[in-house]
Amino acid sequence: MLRASPPTLPNTMIRTDLANAIRALAMDAVQQANSGHPGMPMGMADIAEVLWNDFLRHNPNNPSWPNRDRFVLSNGHGSMLHYALLHLAGYDLSIDEIKRFRQLHSKTPGHPEVHETPGVETTTGPLGQGLANAVGMALAEKILAKRFNRPGFDIVDHYTYVFLGDGCLMEGISHEVASLAATLKLGKLIAIYDDNGISIDGKVQGWFTDDTPTRFQAYGWEVIPDIDGHSPEAIKAALVTAAADPDRPTLICCKTVIGFGAPNKAGSESAHGAPLGKDEVALTRERLGWPHAPFEVPEAIYAAFDARKKGAAWQAEWDALFARYRQAFAKEGAEFERRLRGDLPEDFAAVAAALTAELAGESAPMASRKASQRALEKLVPAIPELIGGSADLAHSNYSIVKSSRDVNTASDGGNYVYFGVREFGMSAIANGMALHGGVVPFTATFLVFSDYARNAVRMSALMHTRVIHVYTHDSIGLGEDGPTHQPIEHLASLRLIPNNRIWRPCDAAETAVAWKLALERTDGPTCLALSRQNLPPQPRDPEQLALIARGGYVLLDTMPGKVDAIVIATGSEVELAVQGARQAAAAGLAVRVVSMPCCEDFDAQSAEYRDAVMPRAVRKRLAVEAARSDYWRKYVGLDGEVIGIDSFGASAPDKALYAHFGLTAERVAATLSAL
Amino acid sequence: MLRASPPTLPNTMIRTDLANAIRALAMDAVQQANSGHPGMPMGMADIAEVLWNDFLRHNPNNPSWPNRDRFVLSNGHGSMLHYALLHLAGYDLSIDEIKRFRQLHSKTPGHPEVHETPGVETTTGPLGQGLANAVGMALAEKILAKRFNRPGFDIVDHYTYVFLGDGCLMEGISHEVASLAATLKLGKLIAIYDDNGISIDGKVQGWFTDDTPTRFQAYGWEVIPDIDGHSPEAIKAALVTAAADPDRPTLICCKTVIGFGAPNKAGSESAHGAPLGKDEVALTRERLGWPHAPFEVPEAIYAAFDARKKGAAWQAEWDALFARYRQAFAKEGAEFERRLRGDLPEDFAAVAAALTAELAGESAPMASRKASQRALEKLVPAIPELIGGSADLAHSNYSIVKSSRDVNTASDGGNYVYFGVREFGMSAIANGMALHGGVVPFTATFLVFSDYARNAVRMSALMHTRVIHVYTHDSIGLGEDGPTHQPIEHLASLRLIPNNRIWRPCDAAETAVAWKLALERTDGPTCLALSRQNLPPQPRDPEQLALIARGGYVLLDTMPGKVDAIVIATGSEVELAVQGARQAAAAGLAVRVVSMPCCEDFDAQSAEYRDAVMPRAVRKRLAVEAARSDYWRKYVGLDGEVIGIDSFGASAPDKALYAHFGLTAERVAATLSAL
Repeated sequence: MLRASPPTLPNTMIRTDLANAIRALAMDAVQQANSGHPGMPMGMADIAEVLWNDFLRHNPNNPSWPNRDRFVLSNGHGSMLHYALLHLAGYDLSIDEIKRFRQLHSKTPGHPEVHETPGVETTTGPLGQGLANAVGMALAEKILAKRFNRPGFDIVDHYTYVFLGDGCLMEGISHEVASLAATLKLGKLIAIYDDNGISIDGKVQGWFTDDTPTRFQAYGWEVIPDIDGHSPEAIKAALVTAAADPDRPTLICCKTVIGFGAPNKAGSESAHGAPLGKDEVALTRERLGWPHAPFEVPEAIYAAFDARKKGAAWQAEWDALFARYRQAFAKEGAEFERRLRGDLPEDFAAVAAALTAELAGESAPMASRKASQRALEKLVPAIPELIGGSADLAHSNYSIVKSSRDVNTASDGGNYVYFGVREFGMSAIANGMALHGGVVPFTATFLVFSDYARNAVRMSALMHTRVIHVYTHDSIGLGEDGPTHQPIEHLASLRLIPNNRIWRPCDAAETAVAWKLALERTDGPTCLALSRQNLPPQPRDPEQLALIARGGYVLLDTMPGKVDAIVIATGSEVELAVQGARQAAAAGLAVRVVSMPCCEDFDAQSAEYRDAVMPRAVRKRLAVEAARSDYWRKYVGLDGEVIGIDSFGASAPDKALYAHFGLTAERVAATLSAL
Repeated sequence: MLRASPPTLPNTMIRTDLANAIRALAMDAVQQANSGHPGMPMGMADIAEVLWNDFLRHNPNNPSWPNRDRFVLSNGHGSMLHYALLHLAGYDLSIDEIKRFRQLHSKTPGHPEVHETPGVETTTGPLGQGLANAVGMALAEKILAKRFNRPGFDIVDHYTYVFLGDGCLMEGISHEVASLAATLKLGKLIAIYDDNGISIDGKVQGWFTDDTPTRFQAYGWEVIPDIDGHSPEAIKAALVTAAADPDRPTLICCKTVIGFGAPNKAGSESAHGAPLGKDEVALTRERLGWPHAPFEVPEAIYAAFDARKKGAAWQAEWDALFARYRQAFAKEGAEFERRLRGDLPEDFAAVAAALTAELAGESAPMASRKASQRALEKLVPAIPELIGGSADLAHSNYSIVKSSRDVNTASDGGNYVYFGVREFGMSAIANGMALHGGVVPFTATFLVFSDYARNAVRMSALMHTRVIHVYTHDSIGLGEDGPTHQPIEHLASLRLIPNNRIWRPCDAAETAVAWKLALERTDGPTCLALSRQNLPPQPRDPEQLALIARGGYVLLDTMPGKVDAIVIATGSEVELAVQGARQAAAAGLAVRVVSMPCCEDFDAQSAEYRDAVMPRAVRKRLAVEAARSDYWRKYVGLDGEVIGIDSFGASAPDKALYAHFGLTAERVAATLSAL
């Protein structure tokens, strides 16, 4: 597995010049933008130069070459380091883009953003999550390697490198994912710690006194401590050692000087997050011996960094290997290609249709978490790339099925991840898996604990990654565990994250459709909010069954052709809405029941469709959801009503809670009649 | 500081009986509720019995005795352990309450809830946060001891004990707060790890392979490994050792058997989260040699647990000490009593009024984060219990002021906490500080990173703790850092947490009022959403200045006496609303501008006041906020409009972003005119 390149640049003086090119681009771009973080790029320049020039296998002309090494900047505020490297290595990132650092529509935003800049693998900035993404990438690599590699055909065989700083290491998520990375034996994950002793508030001794090497040894990592982060030889030796251990992830601890080269600001927090200032930039040029004008890089240095030829050769070698693989293992080859494209299996439509038919045919009440498990029983074997697990709630989330096999022990790579009690880590690891490609990750926990993972859900929405979050126990209906475990604001809060989708199905049929759409969605995450308690199946004709996918549809008109009032509900409250509507109808009101499992998908329908479901003129509107009411004002307006819960829950059996919080059919009927 | 009681119960056989009383109550209550977690109480019963009978200094007749030791169950699902202890020790928690475990309106909810049960110090269940609360309590104790104790007068001198399990240790927050606890030298914090090798999904080896003792040594903790959690002698010796070190917090690692005593379920996840079942309960009675009927406890065992006499004596001793202290140090004594009552200083009203007058008199544009710092410059010296800090963004949040002194080094206890990059830990520590009493904590970070801390904010709202969260950089107005750092959904998401308050002031005057109300609020948290960019001061007459405290008020009527349309705005968008209103007014529209810094406080006003601000008949309504629009539908209805941002932000200078996202006065005017 050792795969260090021969030393291409043995001369330290030259290496320093190369690193100085990074330093100069970083300080000049930050100066020009009058905004940004010069300190980290200047401090990590030597490390980055050695890694990129001597180790990283990538192809600037094809940033999506499947077998490239992954490079993640978890300390994402040092984005100029990454942009400088991409520019110098020959990616499609011109010097003009460097000059437009942090400007609108540039390819060089303040923090690295995947899809915005060729060669950026993930969006970082929120500290610690880059490390988690890297763990996810390394996990995906390991699973795919086990699944697809054959003797002599290591078609999946790359490293994942991640840079991180003190901030990442202080964040709790670093604990969650470092711990799990060791358990999962991710030996091809190599983390490089920028141990500069400085964070934004100053010298870290006042608030960060961990013995980090010992901490990571306690996780089971290989730790290479005390590396001089300005010595190319030391860095190189550490990287060679790191690559050798097939089982243990490696942490290389590099002592560095933040803002290296700036005579008055190096080693101080003043170099961290603000331009050095014109005078200091000039003095730094002098100190570094970098006489070139801003944004000017000598040709020799460009030539030394240029990875296009190497990259093309690496990819050509791999292309040839894969072509032979494709011949020797036609089925696996085709499957691998399909997975990389992100296409679902050819028979997915048929599987999903059968699943929907099966679950729509259920006549007994069923919890939607159970319906979800029924779905997974069919989907997991049918979609081998569907890989996920729960944060230690497998048998509560019903996230595990007969064909689930532990990724840590299954010889074929497995498909189930025991994430442990690590909601945030789980979700950010899932983002990394999705970004790696070849797998479709899912996570599972109680809905209330989406709070712990919230910024990772946001990041998947921002990065347009296909991740499916299975959130069970979606209301006070979970009962006795009480208010700490009962979501109130979570449904609405998740709906408010841009580009997120929340499906809260009312029965087994809607659950089947939710899973289908979540899997088909390729541009962002889907959260499935599922009940602990049983839900009765709602009768539907085939047309209605097809309309579920619209996110909201007419489930019932108590008087066909007439609509006096509309009641909108989701999930477990749809049955209450139906019962309440029938009671109000008995008193003469023509009530329409709208099932709204996914507000975002409904909102994305044409105005014509939306108006047909909820005619604008009908202002007698009631929404019912066992959750915070405010969100529903967007559908019921100032003249409507909402039956929701605007306080915290309580500990009691679920039926007692529904009565206590006034979530009853009688109240639905009375409220409809009083509108 | 060593303060172990003499061994009161040397006979192991008797001790086992005592522990069995806990086991029986736990298994029987869970069985009766048909819901709950018997495994942890049965496993930790021996440890709890020794701690409570030989070490814990508390007073069952006065659960709020200020100098009591604090006891926190971070693995809160084992709530029956705590309820059994409280019942047996003589707290006001009858056997009938034990029988009503997990029922509506009982004092024995599914997870421990502060204010619901006498003797419960904090609400736990969301894993890891109990440990964080305990760190906050120990920190408060340390600060108060330094501030108030005098030679011979250790009026603040108690331990904080916390039980925790594998789940707590897997959670990232355990890393954040354990790391910081060592840095802060919280030697009187004693954590006891229930190392039973089992979590919900089964044997933890599959997902949790940390060397936990080494991990905590890496933080700088005293670690006592390999204690037999069923040996009273070993537990006792460990607790004596733990208490001795004045500087290092201690982790005692106890090997235990989950569900100890259940012949078929002990040592297995089947004992964790479900009733044992009638047959197994019967077999457990036999195995433990516990012949008593459910909920029957022999008098001798009650007598052995009864801490009322001890507790009264401890408190009497302290009362006498404090009486002498009060005589010797009248000023400090009165101050200490004031702080414990939670009253603000007598001159607070005057200080706040002067502050508001001063900031309302500012004529130059000022960022609201800067106004907040100006407020803190006055408030911090005036309110010595106001203690907080930032998650490594002191000079961005402007949370630090001239009179700030590091709690870790100041000889008087200090008032500023360098929390490091630990948003979640910071917020849950603040909850623990508030619960301890004697301090009023505040936290600070960027608004977007409230995500990292979200469940701790929820917990403070649920627990009604006075915590103030300073969230700066509250919109795309932060500029170049880009979408990872730009909140979009956060304002609305925080508003949706029940009992939370979000103040988003539009200028320095509103900022002063926000701080005043946040400090005066004693029943929950307040989040201050503050701008990075400068905001112009809005002109107000004295009546308007007074109305700020209502949360929403009429800032401007373009045509006095006439209201054709209403525009509602918060924070940085108020100026846009004013400008847009004036433009629309120039075209003949009578526009009212409503400044709405706090929706929750506005919603709490009388219907009369609310209707006076926004007359129901006026349906031409526009809301303007640089954030997700959906929330505002509750004020503008189906016929109004919202100018907001429903996508992620972008990296660019703030002015470019406001134009890019269409947040302009011109658009406000055009939208008003088109309503």
